[in-house]
Amino acid sequence: MKKISLLLLIALAGFMIKANAQDQKAESFTGATAHKKHYQAVYQLNNDDEKVIKATLKNINNALEDPRLKGKLEIELVVHGGGVAVFKKDKPYEQQLKDLQAKGVILAQCLNTMKERNISKEELFDFISFVPSGNGEIIIRQQEGWAVVHP
Amino acid sequence: MKKISLLLLIALAGFMIKANAQDQKAESFTGATAHKKHYQAVYQLNNDDEKVIKATLKNINNALEDPRLKGKLEIELVVHGGGVAVFKKDKPYEQQLKDLQAKGVILAQCLNTMKERNISKEELFDFISFVPSGNGEIIIRQQEGWAVVHP
Amino acid sequence: MKKISLLLLIALAGFMIKANAQDQKAESFTGATAHKKHYQAVYQLNNDDEKVIKATLKNINNALEDPRLKGKLEIELVVHGGGVAVFKKDKPYEQQLKDLQAKGVILAQCLNTMKERNISKEELFDFISFVPSGNGEIIIRQQEGWAVVHP
Repeated sequence: MKKISLLLLIALAGFMIKANAQDQKAESFTGATAHKKHYQAVYQLNNDDEKVIKATLKNINNALEDPRLKGKLEIELVVHGGGVAVFKKDKPYEQQLKDLQAKGVILAQCLNTMKERNISKEELFDFISFVPSGNGEIIIRQQEGWAVVHP
Repeated sequence: MKKISLLLLIALAGFMIKANAQDQKAESFTGATAHKKHYQAVYQLNNDDEKVIKATLKNINNALEDPRLKGKLEIELVVHGGGVAVFKKDKPYEQQLKDLQAKGVILAQCLNTMKERNISKEELFDFISFVPSGNGEIIIRQQEGWAVVHP
Repeated sequence: MKKISLLLLIALAGFMIKANAQDQKAESFTGATAHKKHYQAVYQLNNDDEKVIKATLKNINNALEDPRLKGKLEIELVVHGGGVAVFKKDKPYEQQLKDLQAKGVILAQCLNTMKERNISKEELFDFISFVPSGNGEIIIRQQEGWAVVHP
């Protein structure tokens, strides 16, 4: 009799665990499943609005931390136009940028923007890299198979 | 004599129909031709501006009704950041969203946004689905071959 | 002796040229390399803000002039929503548009926008082309392999 109760208990426990797992699955998402081993995305930042800059940096972090992409996502932040603000030494983004770089994020500044706005490399953080044009970079990356996100 | 007139008339009519068809073709567009059997696009909404929300919903409808894509286009609306407004019960978008859903549009809310903004699922329409991060969703979809539109 | 000096001079010159080339390479960029023979990108303009219109036209030029893409890049400018302003006869963009068209840029106006806003073709420059919907155009192009840029 005890044996049967134990078996019933185990069966019940098993049922509850399974039901719970299904609930979680139903709740978690009905979106995309990540089948690839490696993901690549270029983020475009062309706005000096503090809200947009902060949202962009946060969005990149959210993508990197997405359980479906964690450890599998390579990102490049391409900055052009007003977005150059994020790379300026007198702006407060140094630590956030270094944290992103430590996670493998490429930080790329458009050289055209610097010419057009008369900005010298000395005004920008010395750990960033440069591309001939931000727009060209965004196009080449996509044509190489990267996704694009414009927050 | 009558026979020849009739033949001429038929020929003339045929010529006119053809000329008219060519005019229409010349006028209609010089853009892309849809060769594929199935199209997929993810729409990004990350703005609480009423104009942007309305434009996004209208844009999705326009894409679904494009004669080149009608019946061949699958869409997912990915909402993150301020865009969460579109899914709030106290906002006036319920019917439009249900209409889109009836046309097969997936309605996906970013769970990160809800955590960051302390929004409970009870505040949102109960017919939407959830994704770990809106940014991850947009990236995975693109890397699976979906187009991306950010209105 | 003269011969040796000459050889040394040549060697020195060669070394300096090479060192200089490496400097330039190191400085130029750490971004993407363009391996393809032909690149294609669709630009989305859906804003009547003069700044956004000007930035979009400049961005297209910057992409076309990017040394990595020069002579290899095909662009279509897809205009919908408020963006229709750029094609209006009473706006000052005629010459810039003609210059872009001369560089092969396709200028495409969304017909849905014109219906919704009651705009006649007579109000727009006569050298542009039309697409059933701007959103459909952007999706079809991407699904055909084009990159997308939304300035």
